[in-house]
Amino acid sequence: ISLHGLEFPRKPIFSLRVSYSVISAASYTDSSDDETSPRDKQQKNSKGSSDFCVKNIKQAEFGRREIEIAEQEMPALMALRKRAQGEKPLAGAKIVGCTHITAQTAVLMETLGALGAQCRWAACNIYSTLNEVAAALAESGFPVFAWKGESEDDFWWCIDRCVNVEGWQPNMILDDGGDLTHWIYKKYPNMFKKIKGIVEESVTGVHRLYQLSKAGKLCVPAMNVNDSVTKQKFDNLYCCRESILDGLKRTTDMMFGGKQVVVCGYGEVGKGCCAALKAMGSIVYVTEIDPICALQACMDGFRLVKLNEVIRQVDIVITCTGNKNVVTREHLDRMKNSCIVCNMGHSNTEIDVASLRTPELTWERVRSQVDHVIWPDGKRIVLLAEGRLLNLSCSTVPTFVLSITATTQALALIELYNAPEGRYKQDVYLLPKKMDEYVASLHLPTFDAHLTELTDEQAKYLGLNKNGPFKPNYYRCLAPTPPLKTGKPG
Amino acid sequence: ISLHGLEFPRKPIFSLRVSYSVISAASYTDSSDDETSPRDKQQKNSKGSSDFCVKNIKQAEFGRREIEIAEQEMPALMALRKRAQGEKPLAGAKIVGCTHITAQTAVLMETLGALGAQCRWAACNIYSTLNEVAAALAESGFPVFAWKGESEDDFWWCIDRCVNVEGWQPNMILDDGGDLTHWIYKKYPNMFKKIKGIVEESVTGVHRLYQLSKAGKLCVPAMNVNDSVTKQKFDNLYCCRESILDGLKRTTDMMFGGKQVVVCGYGEVGKGCCAALKAMGSIVYVTEIDPICALQACMDGFRLVKLNEVIRQVDIVITCTGNKNVVTREHLDRMKNSCIVCNMGHSNTEIDVASLRTPELTWERVRSQVDHVIWPDGKRIVLLAEGRLLNLSCSTVPTFVLSITATTQALALIELYNAPEGRYKQDVYLLPKKMDEYVASLHLPTFDAHLTELTDEQAKYLGLNKNGPFKPNYYRCLAPTPPLKTGKPG
Amino acid sequence: ISLHGLEFPRKPIFSLRVSYSVISAASYTDSSDDETSPRDKQQKNSKGSSDFCVKNIKQAEFGRREIEIAEQEMPALMALRKRAQGEKPLAGAKIVGCTHITAQTAVLMETLGALGAQCRWAACNIYSTLNEVAAALAESGFPVFAWKGESEDDFWWCIDRCVNVEGWQPNMILDDGGDLTHWIYKKYPNMFKKIKGIVEESVTGVHRLYQLSKAGKLCVPAMNVNDSVTKQKFDNLYCCRESILDGLKRTTDMMFGGKQVVVCGYGEVGKGCCAALKAMGSIVYVTEIDPICALQACMDGFRLVKLNEVIRQVDIVITCTGNKNVVTREHLDRMKNSCIVCNMGHSNTEIDVASLRTPELTWERVRSQVDHVIWPDGKRIVLLAEGRLLNLSCSTVPTFVLSITATTQALALIELYNAPEGRYKQDVYLLPKKMDEYVASLHLPTFDAHLTELTDEQAKYLGLNKNGPFKPNYYRCLAPTPPLKTGKPG
Amino acid sequence: ISLHGLEFPRKPIFSLRVSYSVISAASYTDSSDDETSPRDKQQKNSKGSSDFCVKNIKQAEFGRREIEIAEQEMPALMALRKRAQGEKPLAGAKIVGCTHITAQTAVLMETLGALGAQCRWAACNIYSTLNEVAAALAESGFPVFAWKGESEDDFWWCIDRCVNVEGWQPNMILDDGGDLTHWIYKKYPNMFKKIKGIVEESVTGVHRLYQLSKAGKLCVPAMNVNDSVTKQKFDNLYCCRESILDGLKRTTDMMFGGKQVVVCGYGEVGKGCCAALKAMGSIVYVTEIDPICALQACMDGFRLVKLNEVIRQVDIVITCTGNKNVVTREHLDRMKNSCIVCNMGHSNTEIDVASLRTPELTWERVRSQVDHVIWPDGKRIVLLAEGRLLNLSCSTVPTFVLSITATTQALALIELYNAPEGRYKQDVYLLPKKMDEYVASLHLPTFDAHLTELTDEQAKYLGLNKNGPFKPNYYRCLAPTPPLKTGKPG
Repeated sequence: ISLHGLEFPRKPIFSLRVSYSVISAASYTDSSDDETSPRDKQQKNSKGSSDFCVKNIKQAEFGRREIEIAEQEMPALMALRKRAQGEKPLAGAKIVGCTHITAQTAVLMETLGALGAQCRWAACNIYSTLNEVAAALAESGFPVFAWKGESEDDFWWCIDRCVNVEGWQPNMILDDGGDLTHWIYKKYPNMFKKIKGIVEESVTGVHRLYQLSKAGKLCVPAMNVNDSVTKQKFDNLYCCRESILDGLKRTTDMMFGGKQVVVCGYGEVGKGCCAALKAMGSIVYVTEIDPICALQACMDGFRLVKLNEVIRQVDIVITCTGNKNVVTREHLDRMKNSCIVCNMGHSNTEIDVASLRTPELTWERVRSQVDHVIWPDGKRIVLLAEGRLLNLSCSTVPTFVLSITATTQALALIELYNAPEGRYKQDVYLLPKKMDEYVASLHLPTFDAHLTELTDEQAKYLGLNKNGPFKPNYYRCLAPTPPLKTGKPG
Repeated sequence: ISLHGLEFPRKPIFSLRVSYSVISAASYTDSSDDETSPRDKQQKNSKGSSDFCVKNIKQAEFGRREIEIAEQEMPALMALRKRAQGEKPLAGAKIVGCTHITAQTAVLMETLGALGAQCRWAACNIYSTLNEVAAALAESGFPVFAWKGESEDDFWWCIDRCVNVEGWQPNMILDDGGDLTHWIYKKYPNMFKKIKGIVEESVTGVHRLYQLSKAGKLCVPAMNVNDSVTKQKFDNLYCCRESILDGLKRTTDMMFGGKQVVVCGYGEVGKGCCAALKAMGSIVYVTEIDPICALQACMDGFRLVKLNEVIRQVDIVITCTGNKNVVTREHLDRMKNSCIVCNMGHSNTEIDVASLRTPELTWERVRSQVDHVIWPDGKRIVLLAEGRLLNLSCSTVPTFVLSITATTQALALIELYNAPEGRYKQDVYLLPKKMDEYVASLHLPTFDAHLTELTDEQAKYLGLNKNGPFKPNYYRCLAPTPPLKTGKPG
Repeated sequence: ISLHGLEFPRKPIFSLRVSYSVISAASYTDSSDDETSPRDKQQKNSKGSSDFCVKNIKQAEFGRREIEIAEQEMPALMALRKRAQGEKPLAGAKIVGCTHITAQTAVLMETLGALGAQCRWAACNIYSTLNEVAAALAESGFPVFAWKGESEDDFWWCIDRCVNVEGWQPNMILDDGGDLTHWIYKKYPNMFKKIKGIVEESVTGVHRLYQLSKAGKLCVPAMNVNDSVTKQKFDNLYCCRESILDGLKRTTDMMFGGKQVVVCGYGEVGKGCCAALKAMGSIVYVTEIDPICALQACMDGFRLVKLNEVIRQVDIVITCTGNKNVVTREHLDRMKNSCIVCNMGHSNTEIDVASLRTPELTWERVRSQVDHVIWPDGKRIVLLAEGRLLNLSCSTVPTFVLSITATTQALALIELYNAPEGRYKQDVYLLPKKMDEYVASLHLPTFDAHLTELTDEQAKYLGLNKNGPFKPNYYRCLAPTPPLKTGKPG
Repeated sequence: ISLHGLEFPRKPIFSLRVSYSVISAASYTDSSDDETSPRDKQQKNSKGSSDFCVKNIKQAEFGRREIEIAEQEMPALMALRKRAQGEKPLAGAKIVGCTHITAQTAVLMETLGALGAQCRWAACNIYSTLNEVAAALAESGFPVFAWKGESEDDFWWCIDRCVNVEGWQPNMILDDGGDLTHWIYKKYPNMFKKIKGIVEESVTGVHRLYQLSKAGKLCVPAMNVNDSVTKQKFDNLYCCRESILDGLKRTTDMMFGGKQVVVCGYGEVGKGCCAALKAMGSIVYVTEIDPICALQACMDGFRLVKLNEVIRQVDIVITCTGNKNVVTREHLDRMKNSCIVCNMGHSNTEIDVASLRTPELTWERVRSQVDHVIWPDGKRIVLLAEGRLLNLSCSTVPTFVLSITATTQALALIELYNAPEGRYKQDVYLLPKKMDEYVASLHLPTFDAHLTELTDEQAKYLGLNKNGPFKPNYYRCLAPTPPLKTGKPG
């Protein structure tokens, strides 16, 4: 399982961005007790094609309705489709994709199709596929290989069916987690000769690409869409501002007013959580390691404390640091009865949940995603989602946020596919600022928002092109992981 | 069905304060397919008593756990229990109650018991009973007559079983909706000779009591606990500030940021909704009929408009006026595609839902409590809870809010039961200000809040008693329905 | 100086509502060194009249400009003038007034004139007259007797010149502080036979009227305009929300972000202060004696503490309780270096400033209205306005707030003057709710705010008149001082 | 006046950061009518030195008190002094400085002295010197050459007296505006041989340095402290959030509640203005050219408009774009009566004030910094500070903000002075992230803020040094002007 010296985990990575529990909520026709594996079924769509593998092609109609509803909230992709009626910027593109298969993904795939691309698709997570949506895509002619509840073997089989096709070879990769990229590296390294680029969305996948790049083994340009400004602001600040409230309410029905809360970490996620809870009448404390973020917390009206100083008195503990063991067993021992503990940050490392799995503590599952951990003296700690990401486990991601991600992916594919020879090397790039701005501008009509245009005189005065970019390429509001290179706009 | 000239509806009134759909969410053991009517079953609790009628006495253990969890969030009642260990202010009280039967009610009933009272209880709503909780109460010896899914005949039979007992006659009534009071008026008017007073919680029930009083037919003192300041602030401003967000998220998963919202009515409910949505980044417009409330909306930063002026552009319409037909078919015709319409106000009169039940419009139920109403041109309006109260249908009422109501009820019972002859006449009273303040003070420890005490010198300067009341009896922040009389503190 | 057994202070009461220091700020032509007393001057206006006594009639032009500017921000009075072009609701009214003489008062007086009234006016404060404005009024024919820097003898002389006129007897009184009313009671009690009513604005004056009423000595109806809902909300909540920031900035240039503040008292003034400081990033603690207000502070996100618990750590102490000795010498001794102490509440009793006038403490005046009180160890406390009202001493009252007061006064005069026999007895009344609402409605156009009108059907459903009142007369948001009676709307 | 081909303006640049009108407010002893030029006076300080030139050395005591008060609010510099008691990181440094001469600068200079440096100082602005402070510095032995009201000839003479000294040659430059740097380039280019670096604070000065660098003519390393994250956040977001309210209040006494405001530009300054006004109850519209900032405005709850769309209805127009002619005569013509127009952005280019100086418009100065511009039809526009920066002209900069700037300057001097050979080339650098973080950390104690420290395990997990930097060097939240290079931390 080592690849050119880099170790990849054998198990498919379950990307953190969208959780299966949420998505399956909408899967209203899944109660079928059909236990046959899709791999063993013979299915054809109404046009006679059988180049797909889904749970049940007959569910296509239900999936189509979901897709239609999603289209209403993804105006940017719909706008791209319209503009593409004349030119087809992806004409000739053969895209192989590996993402969650949801109604929103379907809108993206059908947009790529409208822009001229041929697509083949697998799921990036064994649980996250909406079967009805997969059926609808298959019915409209997309070779989709995915169903909910794949085995690990199924998972790689599906990916393989996407790339290992006679007479068809991908020239673009859209990946979410890096499993597809990994598979091609491992099994079909020659395929990279024709591939013009990789677009990767997840933190994990981006991290792998930087490792490959550092090791000199990245053989095509890659676009890191995870770190685009627009996407980051929405995934973190704006989305979390709403989902922290939503996640806590759905799991605990608690009242926020007057509650004492400590938020660990004052990055974008922490800022969103703090703003929302303060607005609801909670009293919020913040912990930070970085003095600049700490000073911001002060100026925003939050007392900056060490966790130890308030742990006995708070009603809620929220982690969003990106760090590990921020909440330790010692902290948990000192919390008061009924204290709620949850994580909005990095995967599931922030709360030392493992330390709670000791014989003297009793776990009681009181609701889906809610455990009471009971101390010998009767004290109960309310642990949400077992320390995994609250907003993914216990709330939903609004379509609008997914729309921004999907649009960013589409534009990254267009950019890489059309870039003139030499613009991008075998390296990892950020989306050019101008395209980042374009993603944002495509979402403004949702808010009936009217952008001001520079006059010629003003553009000259500012030394800017009237159409942007309006900020330098390195303008960002978030710290990315490794050193980044930025593409130049087309 | 007329009673002393007043017309009562024959059907039991389904009180608006807590909806069955919410409560049943927690009812995890109800999937039993036992179809036998409880009235036909022979059940005994472990002490051998069969003076009760519930769905299944064996579910008592599950209900007990729910009660124990609720106890943790109802500190005021628990504090009353403690203080009552010495004196028993309800010793000798025989209370007949008719309310929703939930874990929170159970905590109230067991508190009344601890204070010395004997209780008999029925449900005020045919759907709202939590069977496990009813079982737990029956198991601990409370004569409870209630189950989820009663017929109308069952409903009155249960009430009758509470009052029509050999060798036991109630001397206090705790009612929620007025059905119990109505039944006694109708069937056992003589019982009122021994009854010291009625405590009524609901708007509807209070309204009936004022009608009786106006007609000179109220024959015992009654306490209107609906209009106490503390309860009102929590039921309206604070609770709605949170539940508007919760209700919208659970039903639509929408994003609030940047959305244009019109809130009809700027009373306490409207103020709560506006504050919450503004804090989440929505752009909020307000409509009002009262210029004083209108001016407050202006000063709070909301544009005051007529509904017509913004109806084409808004993403969400929320009614909270207490009025009828605030949103008409004409408004609905002019809304844009995907506009969400919901009601936080008065029962289900505010949106003219009936006007949408016409042949040219298609209704599509897309989720529980969510309908798409589709116009011939494809426009969809998203109607929540069919225009019924959003916060009751689509979110939950936090235990803390219910705790304030329950404590108010308990104190009203104590006040009426212990009031010296002549303090209360045959009229409807508000809870004395001092007791209203006492309810509030019992809830302060939840927030580790420390009240300042007046010095003797300061009390003299202000002309106040050091223990309150701190405001005159007529101090209120909300307009009650009819002219009110206020009791003097004991 | 005792009047019918009631003791009045001999010195004119300096009303608290508008401070002279503020008003004089605009008095740009006062550097004249003319030391002749106005009483000794012979002045005539351009029409030849000399029925006035002001500092210098030649300053009229400057005053006129101030009045014109004020007119632009007093749209409600200007609207009243317009509506009065047809009817003259004050035709025949002879109003004697005693208020601060400012540009805003001038707009009021000229409005009363336009409505048909004859007016004679004196100042209610020996320092607060704007000489230019007084000159402008005199120039346009108003008999005004007032100048800045009157002696006490001048003060009463001016009042006397207003009422003691041959061939003219007042039938209405507009008073601010009660001095005019007192003078008539004392000197010309028979005048009350023709007087239809008194309109009183100040807390002090209202208090005296209630005392008179209680003693059975009030011989005409009086209208307490101080406690009207609209006026109170603006004088307290909305005005203080802004002036707390303004007063602190102008005196100390401090930064609010991150500062720890304790606000004593969570009434309307406290709510305004807390909201503003929270919004600017301060961390705010609250003290309260009333558990209902305390619970509101909790739900609004403020920690409720006793002053002692935080006195060592806070950067700012603000009193707004209406109480005395809220901040004691003991508290002051424990404050940290540079702590700022100020009062937004009741006159100058809240901070025990007298306790700081001891030999071991050094006072250093560092700016106008700012004293450093220095402890032997070098600790400095920053005391603002010597504990008097910060918003009056160190900031200004926006014209818009004064407009609401003036409009309320005008409507109260109209109501009392036109009320049919018997509507008002010899008692103190609140402005009828309907007129309170009318004041509010006259100010809505400033915000381009559009009120919704009830349909006939809705009005019937709600049991309301379409034109209001929309709330019962006793609907209030603030506790008034003594038991109040309310007039019925005309 | 051209220097190596670059054109420098002959007149000294009046830096924009601190305006003279503000500073002079505190200059309470300046009413002296001593008209003798300081250059013609013979003055000695109490130690007999006459190596200085100030207005009046006898005012030293007053200046010392101002310095002492400032020290209390500049804890970071005082902390640096303490830490420097052992080591003297600036031992041997000979610093020539050219900045505003205020109490805060004095605290900086005396800190540099305590750290081991010798200093000579001139003013960067002919009006901004506080004479008393200059006297106090001269009295304690600092060679200071500055007074309020210098002529242009005086200005350069003072600078020359700082650098042209026998037996003393500077090895560090601290500049604010670039005039000092310019003078040395022009007159004493050889001096650069001994100079280890330049620290420059102002936008203008930084711009010049980049021009020099681009032209290959920068002969020593330069540190751009203007663009450090901490300084920028405070100068823009946090400071403007408060000063927009302060500036508007002090000039107009207006009420914010309910007012309609348009803010042009949603960068950090715009974000601060919008947040503050929204919190005070204003209704805020935003204009933007950059779609990413525009989308942020939407998500923060502001309607994004073009200026034309709202210009007729708004009560206040605020520019903060950094652009020119954002508000044109056409806009001004369409504004409503009493509309207030002001600038929080870039120098005085944003509002086309020149277009208002036409014969048909009348200007009326109604207060200091407030002009009414009157149209022929009587419409008045209220123009503040003639379109110059409102927060500098009409409010004050809190000492805390100046403390951050001064600390940043001190650390930049220490870094450049102690950097090992080769760390810095002849280029313009940003303050290393670690030192930026250090500035922030030195200000945390003001807020009693407690930073969390990483455990070894956590530091390893994150790949960070436990002492920072915690963010990469290029992490910024603001767009700087030209391409930047960043120094590595020492």
